[in-house]
Parts: sequence; structure tokens; C-alpha cells
Amino acid sequence: MKRNISNAMSRSKSSRPPRNSAERKGRKTPQENRGAGNPSKKSSGGDIWFYGDHAVFACLANEKRRLKRLLMTKAKFTELDDETKGMIEERLAPEIVSREAIDALVGEQAVHQGVALLPSPLPEMAIEDLPGADDPAPLVVALLDQVTDPHNVGAILRSAAAFGVAGLIMPDRHSPQATGVLAKSASGALETVPLIRVSNLSRALDQLAEKGFWRIGLDGYADQDLETIAKGQRKVALVLGSEGKGLRALTAQKCDFLARLPISGQIESLNVSNAAAIAFYEISRQLKSL
Amino acid sequence: MKRNISNAMSRSKSSRPPRNSAERKGRKTPQENRGAGNPSKKSSGGDIWFYGDHAVFACLANEKRRLKRLLMTKAKFTELDDETKGMIEERLAPEIVSREAIDALVGEQAVHQGVALLPSPLPEMAIEDLPGADDPAPLVVALLDQVTDPHNVGAILRSAAAFGVAGLIMPDRHSPQATGVLAKSASGALETVPLIRVSNLSRALDQLAEKGFWRIGLDGYADQDLETIAKGQRKVALVLGSEGKGLRALTAQKCDFLARLPISGQIESLNVSNAAAIAFYEISRQLKSL
Repeated sequence: MKRNISNAMSRSKSSRPPRNSAERKGRKTPQENRGAGNPSKKSSGGDIWFYGDHAVFACLANEKRRLKRLLMTKAKFTELDDETKGMIEERLAPEIVSREAIDALVGEQAVHQGVALLPSPLPEMAIEDLPGADDPAPLVVALLDQVTDPHNVGAILRSAAAFGVAGLIMPDRHSPQATGVLAKSASGALETVPLIRVSNLSRALDQLAEKGFWRIGLDGYADQDLETIAKGQRKVALVLGSEGKGLRALTAQKCDFLARLPISGQIESLNVSNAAAIAFYEISRQLKSL
Repeated sequence: MKRNISNAMSRSKSSRPPRNSAERKGRKTPQENRGAGNPSKKSSGGDIWFYGDHAVFACLANEKRRLKRLLMTKAKFTELDDETKGMIEERLAPEIVSREAIDALVGEQAVHQGVALLPSPLPEMAIEDLPGADDPAPLVVALLDQVTDPHNVGAILRSAAAFGVAGLIMPDRHSPQATGVLAKSASGALETVPLIRVSNLSRALDQLAEKGFWRIGLDGYADQDLETIAKGQRKVALVLGSEGKGLRALTAQKCDFLARLPISGQIESLNVSNAAAIAFYEISRQLKSL
């Protein structure tokens, strides 16, 4: 049991060559532009039922949402405090229904806690809406490259809200839609962290560079720790790959830096939402010390 | 979008009084001893089917496990590299079966990747097996107080392995058993991080104090950040409460310190496995700087 923890901090694998590149590669090739199209303002979270206390009450409190229907069991309505009842009354009249009626809507497996809400979609942000290179305010965004599990995306949104991440960028394809599962895992964070859906992640990475972001790809085989890489940087775009395969080569090439989390050789990788949480924490630590 | 990140780092809620206590409270009351009994060496992970690449192959590689049966689809067996085939041959003969046969064993919902393994249970550790107060080597253990979701416990085990945590302590009751779901979420970490099941968490916290551990409870309402609290400490027992309710009052009272993670007021809390991952990361950072 006397494992030496400081020794366990360096990762054993080092066979893959480093792909660190500290220089910007901002030039656009025809291929990168192809298919990027005009990013249109899409909507997320529309015509899907939200369920569970956190997801529903955060959505109810969000003035930007129009609300279509609110279902509650009698038991749930009875246990609400006056403040919450007042907030609901101002928005829409709840329909008191049986637990089974909610089961039927959101699925029996879903832990809905006796409450479900049908909101209108939120207007979705575009990369263009982020501050430009002339704005020096510290800012963090995150990009997900083929993270497909809605539980993971929801948990990442939740951690993003916790550490002030200004937007979560995902490709239109190979990403989950804003479903009830995602909203439940996000525990209300879908209301505060904008989802930015893009048709071309490579183009999005170019745009972020133009806006003055340093693109840091999280990669278990990178030479340097995130703590070292993130030090002193004001505008960070954190790039996260899928859990099994990590960053795709093309995505990694677009990054200004690759950085690793200092995990032991005992395990191959962290769960992607746990890796994201640690990275958001570390980057926010660095921003505070600016 | 110009959210000021440094301002968002301080939590808005502060109504709950701080319960910080830097002094040891090592005295045992009759109540604490009642029901603690003699911790016997129980076994975990027995007669349950493990499934999925990481859980199965980590278990196969663990010499401490006796292996009863290994089921594989033909497709899975064909794609194995020679090294893995050799490792399997040394341990036991795989039974080539259909995907549906594995579905039937582990459940259709389970992503088993065409492989399932029935191992013998691992011998379970007890608190008594941890090094004593006279051993100054840095060491971290974690305690879970009523964390019940096997996905979360599995993900916490995985992060524990990643950051060299020496054991995960859980009460016998209100904790999930070492099921296939937990093993899958742990992604092999069940083989490297000992589970320590105790009948009385309060007694376990006393024993840890006697062994020279500082007991740090993670609490969103604590006054001080974990970074400040963990600085300079060599032996840490991190105590994590359930996601909804946090630490129980009795558990919090047993802690030497309560510490918070610096999350914004935008969200009430982190997912418990994400909070654990950040805490393990921060504590291991501090240990490296000793």
C-alpha cells in the first residue's frame, strides 16, 4: 500500500512523438473552407421535454426561454416553497398529472423527480458572437471533437458553468442533440453555457485563432502539462477529443499547443467529463493569477 | 458574452455557518463504537460478470484474480493482437459465443464490446492495512459518504487510479456493490485501487486520524479553497458526500477541515465524480510540491 504518489505522477507511455506546435497556423486552405458554409443561428433544446428538478427549475428561471407546458405530480407541487410557486405562476400554469404520465413522456428509466417541462429552444450562439482579438478580457471556450455520450456532454456543460467557460463548441455531426438526458446531466447548465454548433470544427478552430484564442488540445501523449501550457494565457480554447480515440490528427494539428493532465501510468485515460472538469479548473486557476 | 471569469470564481451563497475545525477530535464516544464491530476482510467483485475491453483486459492482467470464464465473440477474438492472445492463453481458454449470448448475461443495454469475464473476487482491504502514523510517506485515500450511483463510483475509482489514490473507502450500506456497471465505469481501476468497505464511516474516520491522516471534507459552503487547505499536507483522507445532499452533518463534524472547490454561483454543485477528479488532481499537485 505504500505507493509513492510523486513517482506515480509521470506517465509511462512516451512512444508517440510530440506534436507540439507553438506557432499559429492561421492560413486557410481551400479544403478547410469547403463545406464550412455560412454558420446560421440554429436552435437547441427545442421541443424536447426537460425533466428533473435542476434542469426544469433552471429552465423556468431563464427569461430567455418561452415555456410551453409544465407537468408536475401533486406530491411535487405540494412540496414546492412559496418562492418557487410564485416563479412558476408568473411563467405558466402547471398541469398536475400522475407520475406514470411523466414516465410515459420521458421514459421510465429517467429520474424525473415528478416534474417535466417543455420549453421553446434557446437561440444558439455562433463563433462570430464571441469577442474579437481586440478584446483582451480573459475568456475560455471549449470544443468537443466527437464526444457523443449525452451524459458526458451534459456533465461537461455543468463543469463549464461551474468554472465560467463562455461557450461549448460542438460539430453538428457526431455530437448529441440537446436532449432531456443531456439537460438532466447538465443540471441546469444548458441555461447558462451557450452551445455553439458548427458545421466544420477545423474552420471553427481557424476562427478562434483569428479572435485571439490559443487553442490547447488535451492529449495524454503530449510532452507538457496543462498547468505549464496554460500559464499566462488570457484567451483559451480547450479542445477535447473522444474518450476512446482522443483528438483526431487533423484536430490536433490545428491546436497551438498539446497538453496533458499528469495522470499515472496505472490507467490509460480519464473519463472525458472528468478530464474536462480538471482542465477547466486548472485554466481558471491560471486566469485568476493573471 | 464578456463574462468576467475572475469575478465568477467566488461562490455567492454564504448563509451556512463555517464548520471548520483544525483540531483533531480523536476521542471515541460509545455511540461511535457501537456497531463498528470487527472489520472482516470481505470480498468484492465476486461472481459478477465484467464486460467491456478496459474492465475485462485489466482484470485478465491482474495476477491477484482467479478467472472462471471468459466469453468472446468471434469478431472480438479475431481482432486481438498476439500479445493479448498470449496473455489470455496463459490464464484461461476463451469460449467463443454469439453477441446475443453476452447480451443475455450482462444486459442488452450494456456496451460489452463482445467480451465478458467472470473473475473471482479480489481480497478486500481494511483500514487496518493502511500504513500507520509512524510512516511519513505521502498518501491519499478517499471516503464516499452515501454516493450510490455505480457510474459515479466507477468514474471516481478511475480518477483515483489516475492520481495515485491508495484506497476508496465506502460504507457497506448505501454504497453500490462492485457490479459490472461499476467495473465498466472504472475502466480497469477496480484492479488497481483497493475498495475498503466499512460498517461504520464515523469509526473509519477515527481510525484514519489515528493513522496520521488529515480528514478533508469537500463542502460547497466551506470558507476556504481546497488548494489552500491541502497545501503542505502529506497524508490526506478526502471525504465526499452525496451529490444532492453533500456531506452529512455527522460526517462533516469528523473532518479536520472543510474545503470548497472554487466554482461560480451559476451552478449549485459539480457532478460528484467531477468534483472528486478535481480534488484528486489538486491534492496530487500539492503532494508533488512537498
